[in-house]
Amino acid sequence: MNNEPYKTYLNENELPTSWYNMRADMKRKPAPLLNPATGKPCTAEDLEKVFCGDLVRQELDDTTAEFAIPDEIRDFYRMFRPSPLIRAYFLEKALGTPAKIYYKFEGNNTSGSHKLNSAVAQAYYAKKQGLKGVTTETGAGQWGTALSMACAFFGLDCKVFMVKCSYEQKPFRREVMRTYGASVTPSPSMDTNVGRMINAEHPGTTGSLGCAISEAVETAVTNPGYRYVLGSVLNQVLLHQSIIGLEARTAFRKLGVKPDIIIGCAGGGSNLGGLIAPFMGEKLRGEADYRFIAVEPASCPSFTRGKYAYDYCDTGRICPLSKMYTLGADFIPSASHAGGLRFHGMSSTLSELYDQKLMEAVSVKQTEVFEAAQFFARTEGILPAPESSHAIRGAINEAVKCRESGEAKTILFGLTGTGYFDMTAYQAFNDGKMSDYLPTDEDLERSFAKLPKIG
Amino acid sequence: MNNEPYKTYLNENELPTSWYNMRADMKRKPAPLLNPATGKPCTAEDLEKVFCGDLVRQELDDTTAEFAIPDEIRDFYRMFRPSPLIRAYFLEKALGTPAKIYYKFEGNNTSGSHKLNSAVAQAYYAKKQGLKGVTTETGAGQWGTALSMACAFFGLDCKVFMVKCSYEQKPFRREVMRTYGASVTPSPSMDTNVGRMINAEHPGTTGSLGCAISEAVETAVTNPGYRYVLGSVLNQVLLHQSIIGLEARTAFRKLGVKPDIIIGCAGGGSNLGGLIAPFMGEKLRGEADYRFIAVEPASCPSFTRGKYAYDYCDTGRICPLSKMYTLGADFIPSASHAGGLRFHGMSSTLSELYDQKLMEAVSVKQTEVFEAAQFFARTEGILPAPESSHAIRGAINEAVKCRESGEAKTILFGLTGTGYFDMTAYQAFNDGKMSDYLPTDEDLERSFAKLPKIG
Repeated sequence: MNNEPYKTYLNENELPTSWYNMRADMKRKPAPLLNPATGKPCTAEDLEKVFCGDLVRQELDDTTAEFAIPDEIRDFYRMFRPSPLIRAYFLEKALGTPAKIYYKFEGNNTSGSHKLNSAVAQAYYAKKQGLKGVTTETGAGQWGTALSMACAFFGLDCKVFMVKCSYEQKPFRREVMRTYGASVTPSPSMDTNVGRMINAEHPGTTGSLGCAISEAVETAVTNPGYRYVLGSVLNQVLLHQSIIGLEARTAFRKLGVKPDIIIGCAGGGSNLGGLIAPFMGEKLRGEADYRFIAVEPASCPSFTRGKYAYDYCDTGRICPLSKMYTLGADFIPSASHAGGLRFHGMSSTLSELYDQKLMEAVSVKQTEVFEAAQFFARTEGILPAPESSHAIRGAINEAVKCRESGEAKTILFGLTGTGYFDMTAYQAFNDGKMSDYLPTDEDLERSFAKLPKIG
Repeated sequence: MNNEPYKTYLNENELPTSWYNMRADMKRKPAPLLNPATGKPCTAEDLEKVFCGDLVRQELDDTTAEFAIPDEIRDFYRMFRPSPLIRAYFLEKALGTPAKIYYKFEGNNTSGSHKLNSAVAQAYYAKKQGLKGVTTETGAGQWGTALSMACAFFGLDCKVFMVKCSYEQKPFRREVMRTYGASVTPSPSMDTNVGRMINAEHPGTTGSLGCAISEAVETAVTNPGYRYVLGSVLNQVLLHQSIIGLEARTAFRKLGVKPDIIIGCAGGGSNLGGLIAPFMGEKLRGEADYRFIAVEPASCPSFTRGKYAYDYCDTGRICPLSKMYTLGADFIPSASHAGGLRFHGMSSTLSELYDQKLMEAVSVKQTEVFEAAQFFARTEGILPAPESSHAIRGAINEAVKCRESGEAKTILFGLTGTGYFDMTAYQAFNDGKMSDYLPTDEDLERSFAKLPKIG
């Protein structure tokens, strides 16, 4: 047996008492959200029509470094946090690498992912504001599941618009949400103006995330006592997710270990931004240096092939404009099994950090990702989500480089969740029927041509 | 916040170093297995044709109290153990009970249940014996999943016969096993004599656990380098599962708490026997007293309506005879969603303890179980397996009695696993389409009439 534990669990009294806001330590701040009607920076008043008040304040604040975590949220966190920091002894051995590999595992909760960290915060502030309920969209279903759990806990109504093809293909995700009392509506529905319009224009459509967002926003705005909530991309979400990195840093300090390389999968940025937050803070303040690597799907390569520009977050173009690395709001990534990484854009904070070369990015192909996922499952015993497996692939690639160079680097990656509801994807891989479709340069140029002429 | 933690995790160096064998402390021992050909007690030689040698020694030894856990198994355990002992603060509050409720949660691993505790032990001994692989059957799929994980880790071939209706209805369970490299064959198959015979006699049959057992045993016996392994009922399995109770007792000692009532769901007895083991040991040695309650489905009530008699463990009648509480090897429980509790018999050790009135048993209806499951999911945040939810129902019933009597009893129950692969069952409940079918007295009399005339 090894002397250092496999799993480092902090005590519950070591649970962070504040979230950390990276933007406070950035000299060049992320660009502000713009109101699509006026082209001017969004005000709190603009945003409060759609979002909860406390969350708007968190969204717009780029100077406060620490936000206290309310006791009610910390109590909920104690059901599934602190999450373990795991030393991947078996993976290291199987790779024959001198690298030390650690992963922060966020999958030990019923939502199956890190999404619950922000869902409980958003539900709490909605309840505190005296709201009846919240609306949201979900694609792969992880965010919808997390939100339905949080709403059940606080006694809030939860209306989820689920992209119709997911609704039909992932009935089990839908049933988890229903078990937690959420109403789940396939999108586009006949319940909203935008849904009826899209159904009329595109009969038989199986929907899109952009359409589901539009339906959820319309429902929030037209129902008194409701607000819309979102599970990624936004600053508030990165703030809540900073608990991942804060716990990881505390655990490393207890072990007397300092990571050299920190790796996360990148979709909208919620997990990556949360994992790196306190470490990036040290780098921004000049206290320490780390390499940060975002791993994104080659089928949806916002960082590695996108443009840094203002763009719409939704295809319906009703949400604020954000300056970010984007493939264009009209870009439709090829069917990939990592539904949580199919967003055309990226968190504006992470985009700015990447633009300042404080972070690296790589893209990996789906088949390489599932090879890594299967290898990891068999050696470390955890069946990872397709999204999380991008980070595994990235970590394995770095560990193999260490094997070749002989360097014993310390690698941390974020294992955001489990793949129990993704077995259709694994089946395609097990049957040798998985392919890689990458966008051509022409695909991207067509999409870039439609970027708004702003900023 | 409460001062006592929600989750008590032992350190990895507090992981038990030995399993505990309850039989050693029993004055009246469980009756021996009988060879079906001779009607005489099975010898090690009889059993070693089918099972691994070390496991046969564990199976037959009713005097050794402690079996050292090999380091290789403890290392594997460190991937997912020690499992947390959780104080159900939110459940207590929601019930308004003065009772203190704790649960030992075994679901935080990819197999999703406690089955992995024995799977890794059985795979280890098979590897140590130099075998090529093992065969088994699976119904609901939890055992097959656990075994496929353990075999992947030790580099053993794993042949799983999966009851055909499960194979077709639970393709995701099948894909998890395939991801871990197991071969999964729908049973009855055309690969074995018994399978071909059953297919010829019952064209289009969707199979049964008894048939799958027969196919797995035949495959083990006819393939050099293979043995058959089983995930419940056997003494060796209860021995391995004692790690659940041992960890729970250590955690309670650290908290300075002593449980009054210990509750587990009862199918073949693997979880119940493991959870109660060290506590029952104290009771058998006269050191302490506890109430033990087995909770079984009303649709398959071995303890509460069965007979204590020698019976076959499989419908094919090729396995040893065991003296146990049984509904008869021909009893076919109604279609229930707790596939893991549909066994007609019960561990012989637990049967003997129940017969000596050292343990109580109650039966609960499926609809009551799912009400408890949904309530628990919404308050404690964990979506439980249907099997585990029998224990939740039992614990809630006792906590409600405390509310009525004002007694602040301490209740421990075993939460054996998660329900992520059981959403079809939850869907039936969510849609109000779940029913209860209980066997009539006539059903049971018909089945009892076919019990073998032995013992």
